[in-house]
Amino acid sequence: MASPLHTPRNAEISERDRSSVFHSWSAQGTLAPLPLAGGSGVEVWDADGRRYLDFSSMLVNVNIGHQHPRVVAAIQEQAAQLTTVAPAHAHEMRAHAAELVLKRAPEGFSKVFFTNGGADANENAIRMARLTTGRDKIVSHYRSYHGNTGAAIVATGDWRRMPNEYSRGHVHVFGPYLYRSEFWAETPEQECERALRHLERTVQAEGPDTIAAFLFETIPGTAGILVPPPGYLAGVREIADRYGILLILDEVMAGFARAGEWFAFDAFDVRPDLITFAKGVNSGYVPVGGVVISDAVAAVFDDRVFPGGLTYSGHPLAAASIVAAQEAMADEGVIENARRIGDEVIGPRLRTLAEESPLVGEVRGRGVFWAVELVADPATREPVATARVGAIKAAMLERGVLGFVAENRVHVVPPAVIGDADAHRGLDVLVEVLQAEATRG
Amino acid sequence: MASPLHTPRNAEISERDRSSVFHSWSAQGTLAPLPLAGGSGVEVWDADGRRYLDFSSMLVNVNIGHQHPRVVAAIQEQAAQLTTVAPAHAHEMRAHAAELVLKRAPEGFSKVFFTNGGADANENAIRMARLTTGRDKIVSHYRSYHGNTGAAIVATGDWRRMPNEYSRGHVHVFGPYLYRSEFWAETPEQECERALRHLERTVQAEGPDTIAAFLFETIPGTAGILVPPPGYLAGVREIADRYGILLILDEVMAGFARAGEWFAFDAFDVRPDLITFAKGVNSGYVPVGGVVISDAVAAVFDDRVFPGGLTYSGHPLAAASIVAAQEAMADEGVIENARRIGDEVIGPRLRTLAEESPLVGEVRGRGVFWAVELVADPATREPVATARVGAIKAAMLERGVLGFVAENRVHVVPPAVIGDADAHRGLDVLVEVLQAEATRG
Repeated sequence: MASPLHTPRNAEISERDRSSVFHSWSAQGTLAPLPLAGGSGVEVWDADGRRYLDFSSMLVNVNIGHQHPRVVAAIQEQAAQLTTVAPAHAHEMRAHAAELVLKRAPEGFSKVFFTNGGADANENAIRMARLTTGRDKIVSHYRSYHGNTGAAIVATGDWRRMPNEYSRGHVHVFGPYLYRSEFWAETPEQECERALRHLERTVQAEGPDTIAAFLFETIPGTAGILVPPPGYLAGVREIADRYGILLILDEVMAGFARAGEWFAFDAFDVRPDLITFAKGVNSGYVPVGGVVISDAVAAVFDDRVFPGGLTYSGHPLAAASIVAAQEAMADEGVIENARRIGDEVIGPRLRTLAEESPLVGEVRGRGVFWAVELVADPATREPVATARVGAIKAAMLERGVLGFVAENRVHVVPPAVIGDADAHRGLDVLVEVLQAEATRG
Repeated sequence: MASPLHTPRNAEISERDRSSVFHSWSAQGTLAPLPLAGGSGVEVWDADGRRYLDFSSMLVNVNIGHQHPRVVAAIQEQAAQLTTVAPAHAHEMRAHAAELVLKRAPEGFSKVFFTNGGADANENAIRMARLTTGRDKIVSHYRSYHGNTGAAIVATGDWRRMPNEYSRGHVHVFGPYLYRSEFWAETPEQECERALRHLERTVQAEGPDTIAAFLFETIPGTAGILVPPPGYLAGVREIADRYGILLILDEVMAGFARAGEWFAFDAFDVRPDLITFAKGVNSGYVPVGGVVISDAVAAVFDDRVFPGGLTYSGHPLAAASIVAAQEAMADEGVIENARRIGDEVIGPRLRTLAEESPLVGEVRGRGVFWAVELVADPATREPVATARVGAIKAAMLERGVLGFVAENRVHVVPPAVIGDADAHRGLDVLVEVLQAEATRG
């Protein structure tokens, strides 16, 4: 509505942001956030009109690209109908969204519980697993991220607190990560076998009857895009079955095209009991997440009250954006594109980079979900200093590529709709920046 | 887009909902959710075109009424620009939304941290209080609700878990509730004084140096719209100050017009350190919540990393809807309307009802935030059976009024934009239904 002449520019927005907005996971005094104003496909632009190739997908969520017209139109149309409905009522878009998500789940999944994002998807999957098994503990990986929540229900005073007072029942194990093996392994087979042995021994030592669920990201994401070795997830399933433990696969980051699959576990021989999702399901156009529930778990709550919920569960705008995004991803072959780009462009080029650059210790990934692990010394595998990773990100931005970094790694995580030319363009910049940094280092 | 001829009807949507959607806080086998399709102002309609007067505001969140054209347009316009931005970047709408929320806070509040809803607003306020004070425990009321989350960050394996492992540090106290006093009180003054004494004794018995914050709903909502007696919140502030404890006021349900104020605490002599909000800030048109942070707490995180965050923090669609809703509420006098309807229509009529109906034990509230407490016996104050409350809700729906019930109560919580005629219409139905129910009982 504002005339272009009155559009605020970078400096003004940055100043207003600094003075009023508190940011995630940061010391606030040192922030210099980029003021973004618009986007289209694989590009975003700032308030001064400078364009960037988005090699981050924001927070690894814009799988369908920015401002997909079909998803934007669906939000606008639903906004005109009815923006919000209480969770106790029914809504056509909510049912439709559930149906489309269920279409991508294996046989034997019957219900979807919608949340606001990935954190509360995991919250509710954990709750379902505890109540289904009557056990408390949740086993997850040290190298993992499952969301930022952990207190509100225990602060709650009323009855809704009581079935949720499980707060210390968490156990962490090491997962497979051959490049930095915790198991003195030398081959993927050995890493897999030993990680499974470590998991089973932990289960035995904790007491199998105390463990409700394994909660694992199918491919740990922010932790380093740690693609599990063949056989690991199948082995996890076996251990779960042996001890009556449920398997929750966290597909928040890996799902819906990111790994070149609908669900990343489609690439592995495993069937979870509960699936959590967010991000890629609608590319984050409207905040949403959810749990896909297997028949056996859903049946537990046919007669028993499920003690979890939230005001915006199954929000119509979120549901409409899921329906449009799921349909567009299917019609446009977005999953296939992501897989092909990973197999034919990103994978080969990053492997060449790993061979040629002394800074690169390992590259790994699939689809549009790749990590470039940077090391100060290829022999010791000592990670590069964080400051150097920050400099690499800044140098990429300088060259028009919005990158994603975590610890000593650059994650190559563009939208799943990226074409060959844009993928090469971004990779050219990454290669160039790493070359310059290697020379400097 | 679908032709009206192809619009799904109630029966079809109900069936699809039953077969694919998992609902909050319910046994799934017994649900018969109402399939809503549209709304306008204080009305909603189902998929068969039947209209209802919304005396629930959905989940007590649609304060500005359904489908306010200005808020709908803002969502549609922002959807056309940019739907999603990572929290690390800046965005003009996010800053603007923060500025408008801060405008309603007292002096000395400088930052807003946006979340997806009320639960994670409380999560992050608790985290801020713990890190600011270096103390663990959170004191809240037994009669309270603060959200459904409590495990995801403890399940997380990486460093983000460690500053958040506080999971059992929760203490609950009884708050003031004269009608069912826990303190053998007979007057509001006595109830207030004794509730404060109980709070202070609990602080002393727990150890003041272990308590980070009091987390209280300004007016406990789902717990029964328990308007605190004069002096209670000021007394809480005094105790907090005496022991170096922070005060978090949860304004998720009470804020933004519900209680006839911008923040409900404006009606009381109290100043919090942290304010949590959601629902009314944008009437839930897009999922959002947040924490308003006082200068002293914000300053703690200037140099220190705040260990909390989420993908959709400060989501542009949510921010745009906040900006439009805040401006519309100011321009249209929505707060003043809510206060006046409470003072002139709902309050007087409910008080008459309480005098006339043997089923009504007490009525209480302010603005568009009222509870009608139903009792089987006015002398013993024994609550009516839940089944009777369900029957009352069904009878109201039959007469075209969508009500809100909790335990033994009907909550009168229409949109804050309701006019006199609609308020009387809904109250007429409530009175009629309670009369019939009293005769039957």
